[in-house]
Amino acid sequence: MSDAKQVSPAVVRRLPRYYRFLGELLKVNVTRISSRELSEKMGLTASQIRQDLNCFGGFGQQGYGYNVEQLHDEIGKILGLDKCIDAILIGAGNLGRAIANHMSFDQRGFRLIGIFDQNPALIGDKIKGITVTSTDNIETFCKNHSPVVAVLCIPKTATKVISEKLIKSGIKGFWNFSHYDLLDNNPDIIVENVHMSDSLMTLSYKVHEFVDNNNKH
Amino acid sequence: MSDAKQVSPAVVRRLPRYYRFLGELLKVNVTRISSRELSEKMGLTASQIRQDLNCFGGFGQQGYGYNVEQLHDEIGKILGLDKCIDAILIGAGNLGRAIANHMSFDQRGFRLIGIFDQNPALIGDKIKGITVTSTDNIETFCKNHSPVVAVLCIPKTATKVISEKLIKSGIKGFWNFSHYDLLDNNPDIIVENVHMSDSLMTLSYKVHEFVDNNNKH
Repeated sequence: MSDAKQVSPAVVRRLPRYYRFLGELLKVNVTRISSRELSEKMGLTASQIRQDLNCFGGFGQQGYGYNVEQLHDEIGKILGLDKCIDAILIGAGNLGRAIANHMSFDQRGFRLIGIFDQNPALIGDKIKGITVTSTDNIETFCKNHSPVVAVLCIPKTATKVISEKLIKSGIKGFWNFSHYDLLDNNPDIIVENVHMSDSLMTLSYKVHEFVDNNNKH
Repeated sequence: MSDAKQVSPAVVRRLPRYYRFLGELLKVNVTRISSRELSEKMGLTASQIRQDLNCFGGFGQQGYGYNVEQLHDEIGKILGLDKCIDAILIGAGNLGRAIANHMSFDQRGFRLIGIFDQNPALIGDKIKGITVTSTDNIETFCKNHSPVVAVLCIPKTATKVISEKLIKSGIKGFWNFSHYDLLDNNPDIIVENVHMSDSLMTLSYKVHEFVDNNNKH
């Protein structure tokens, strides 16, 4: 990872997209792709793509394009998908269940090792083979199993208290679905907030723009 | 919206964040804020913020900062949140239920008017006061109620067929949670894909970077 230190957050954010697109190409047996073709698929310019991939030492050969499998593997390694981070899920309601069932944690560099909820009605349930445990047991669990990441699928009001408890218990990274903004300026933790409402508002903008434009023509 | 036509996708994507941050300020009775203060809260530069807001005609007064309520309202209007787009949800499994229960559609410019699933075990269930209906009834429902947007919480394999049916039935916008990439180069539709796995991979990168850096010090 030492080469990746100067990489801008914008490039980092594009890497999963590269990884995903290259994975789709592999599935349909495409072995080589030029930066121009990749750019058309991804809606970026070819020079943008060359610049992005140069940040990591570049993988292409002038005139030959990129080896899809090699590039896919390399980006996977840069993203750390060949390693394994132990994670716990807090909140076993609809959203937590959906995340646990829907996401392929193991293909994304994580292993889900515990699920916690404070609702007695949910404790004891099995989700993906993991038994839902009381949030009272979080500290003990963390002491014994040292998870590194917590996925937060809890209401906004509960997030502050739970996240402080988790940080004290050694959690370093948060995948945060609660509407509470965990500050990522805390130097002791890494936060990836998922703001689904931002995405919904962006859709609102785009739909109105689309309808307005079509009404004009 | 006519002023907003030249706005870059990157600026559009930041607008919901501005709206969210300004909303938080309003809740704690902050009435004015400088671009510098706003920049610190948002992790952007002050000049970036001035540039972004200038795209929409600018709302600040030199030396006085921004009126928080006015800016919040204006950005809400630009996003179309003062209007109402009728939406339907396809897929009433864990993810669909979580989205229906978790998201404040009405505060984001939408009204959820129908929920559909093909699983007979779910048909007839009530979610947020809406009865889950068979996907066989989608065409008739669209004819009678003219929803504009569809939220897709269905497996990847079902997405192609269902989305084609929805486009034929007059759906213009998709909020797509399925892992199937709806192409947003179709000029007849607007797509907002939600790639939760991209976010998870970004977290993997950031956690490894963080751990590597801490091990060095």
